[in-house]
Amino acid sequence: MTDILSKLRPQARLAPESGIVEVVNFAREREDLIPLWVGEGDLPTPSFISEAANRSLAAGETFYTWQRGIPALRQALADYHARLYSRPFSPERFFVTGSGMQAIQLAVQAVAGEGDEVVLPDPAWPNLAAAVEIMGARAVCVPMTFSANGWHLDPERLFAAVTPRTKAIYVNSPSNPNGWMADRAWLEFVLAEARARGLWIIADEVYGRFTYGPEERAPSFYDIAEEDDLILQVNTFSKNWAMTGWRIGWLSAPPVMGQVIENLIQYNTSGVAAFMQRAGIAALEEGEAFVAEQIARARRGLAIMRRALDESPRVRYAPPQGAFYLFFSVEGFADSRELAKSLVSQTGVGLAPGSAFGTAGEGFVRLCFARSEVDLAKAAERLSVWLPR
Amino acid sequence: MTDILSKLRPQARLAPESGIVEVVNFAREREDLIPLWVGEGDLPTPSFISEAANRSLAAGETFYTWQRGIPALRQALADYHARLYSRPFSPERFFVTGSGMQAIQLAVQAVAGEGDEVVLPDPAWPNLAAAVEIMGARAVCVPMTFSANGWHLDPERLFAAVTPRTKAIYVNSPSNPNGWMADRAWLEFVLAEARARGLWIIADEVYGRFTYGPEERAPSFYDIAEEDDLILQVNTFSKNWAMTGWRIGWLSAPPVMGQVIENLIQYNTSGVAAFMQRAGIAALEEGEAFVAEQIARARRGLAIMRRALDESPRVRYAPPQGAFYLFFSVEGFADSRELAKSLVSQTGVGLAPGSAFGTAGEGFVRLCFARSEVDLAKAAERLSVWLPR
Repeated sequence: MTDILSKLRPQARLAPESGIVEVVNFAREREDLIPLWVGEGDLPTPSFISEAANRSLAAGETFYTWQRGIPALRQALADYHARLYSRPFSPERFFVTGSGMQAIQLAVQAVAGEGDEVVLPDPAWPNLAAAVEIMGARAVCVPMTFSANGWHLDPERLFAAVTPRTKAIYVNSPSNPNGWMADRAWLEFVLAEARARGLWIIADEVYGRFTYGPEERAPSFYDIAEEDDLILQVNTFSKNWAMTGWRIGWLSAPPVMGQVIENLIQYNTSGVAAFMQRAGIAALEEGEAFVAEQIARARRGLAIMRRALDESPRVRYAPPQGAFYLFFSVEGFADSRELAKSLVSQTGVGLAPGSAFGTAGEGFVRLCFARSEVDLAKAAERLSVWLPR
Repeated sequence: MTDILSKLRPQARLAPESGIVEVVNFAREREDLIPLWVGEGDLPTPSFISEAANRSLAAGETFYTWQRGIPALRQALADYHARLYSRPFSPERFFVTGSGMQAIQLAVQAVAGEGDEVVLPDPAWPNLAAAVEIMGARAVCVPMTFSANGWHLDPERLFAAVTPRTKAIYVNSPSNPNGWMADRAWLEFVLAEARARGLWIIADEVYGRFTYGPEERAPSFYDIAEEDDLILQVNTFSKNWAMTGWRIGWLSAPPVMGQVIENLIQYNTSGVAAFMQRAGIAALEEGEAFVAEQIARARRGLAIMRRALDESPRVRYAPPQGAFYLFFSVEGFADSRELAKSLVSQTGVGLAPGSAFGTAGEGFVRLCFARSEVDLAKAAERLSVWLPR
């Protein structure tokens, strides 16, 4: 056994197991568990989306198709972005991918390999660092800081981590796991600095429509960037349209990269099923009411959970500006795995340990509030009984 | 523009465009074209398969699922292999992937990166070499030879290309593009040698059920290997079940690698949609009659095309032992791209240039005969008029 594993490429052998899984496994026998650990809502995909896939399948759209995505979906993506960012977009900059995760993997493959570095914040979704390291590059983490003013990501610290080996900076706003959101000035600073240094930005604005302040949506690199800026935007149908299980997303990149990205798609999965893409078109073109309801639901969910957490003076968190997670610590629990396990055992609420998101996440747990109010109210009640006063 | 491309990772920038595309583009304005260039049949996915996906979608199976594949599909894969190879298989060795292509990409990621080498035959499906090079490894080609006795792949030559950097040998039997098929003694030699040297075998037996001799199926490493041999079998639902557009396949590997492969899947696409996997189960469990009809159809297609080619004394090819391609040359045409373009212009039959499959494929064109008899008869007639006597 050991012998087989020793024959593997070190970067594959050492790719980390998801840090959430340990807690999920620990919870397997716990009955009546309320699972708030995964970044996934509890609504199935709405039927107007699934039925678009069904119609396409019934029509026999089961052959090889465009590697970059079917023209109708690329056009729908351009139109969707034009509506959301009030500026024109060329369909040529959109590439359909087999999940937001694959958009990240393709972005990394395009710019970073052995001997290269990618700078990213800590805490962050762990899959980004793992994707970088599988390609043989190094993920260089810059800690975010937590204070009474909330989470802060010092953009100068990001660039202080840049070396001659750095190829890209990963920016995730709103942040999974901690709900931090970049403002326009922050984005402008980072874009100017990245331009000056010739660095790529891998922009993950997947949660950009889930915000909790007065703004309609999160500030975006799309608000300030030119078409040929070195920005690779990764995105997914998963969150907005309750399509986590579909594995369909997109990459937005300078159109001149078209052939390169097509080739990378060709040699990774050779594209996405046309019938899935028809569902994506339905989501983009008919999905606004559903997205609005998802956002309203997340806002109600956040309010429910905050009421419970705010009852305890031992709980600390920054109210999320965006995304759909509460990232909180409980006095007396320095080890987030222990905290998560205690919560499973003693309350039956399943949360993700902050350490899974990086060193700076230690001490925190992540709670997804994009769930039904019934479940959240039950979880809130359990937490409020358990949390120290 | 050049500036953006210069900022890309060289292995991404230099990943080759599919060699077939040049001819496809050349043919775009040609009317009444019979496209036999792609490795794809002309039947849509049978409805018993598509309907399984529809039912799953309607039942709301749209959430995250097992990264390795749903247990029911892994069990169905084990049962399918047990029927086909008359020996037991553990479901633990099967991993559902987003296409056979992704199975290859994951296999490469598992064993070869920067500074490593993978030995493969030439000609071969070009995506393998490209997948290797995207990971920063080097694809080392060993030419197959063509003579009056057909195509030959000298196994000693394969191993003569092995260096201390070699991690794996890629074996594709039956071969795309030339229909060569390894016999059991050949496989035994390669397995023994790979064992002795501690090398991985990446086994691509995707076309193993399409054979043209007396045998039921192609000889397989499954006939001779132990469960913990260093063999990564890549496979796909595409060919047997007319599911090319679905992008679903599987990887079969020593079960001890389970966690490593799960992690690689996590960081590439995070799995395959559950509703796609339900379709896979239907294919495996209810698809034998369809597979048998596909094979019978390919045999009829081969006979139709051979009759046309055999009329010309200037045509040379080895009758394929397996897969569903005729790989032939025409005296007077040394350049396969020119030959393919001439055929498009003068006959309206679209074939793939052999040079797209490697240096040893130069001079040949690949014709896919897994098509309707009506189309093939028309193509045969056009070729038989055009081919020199």
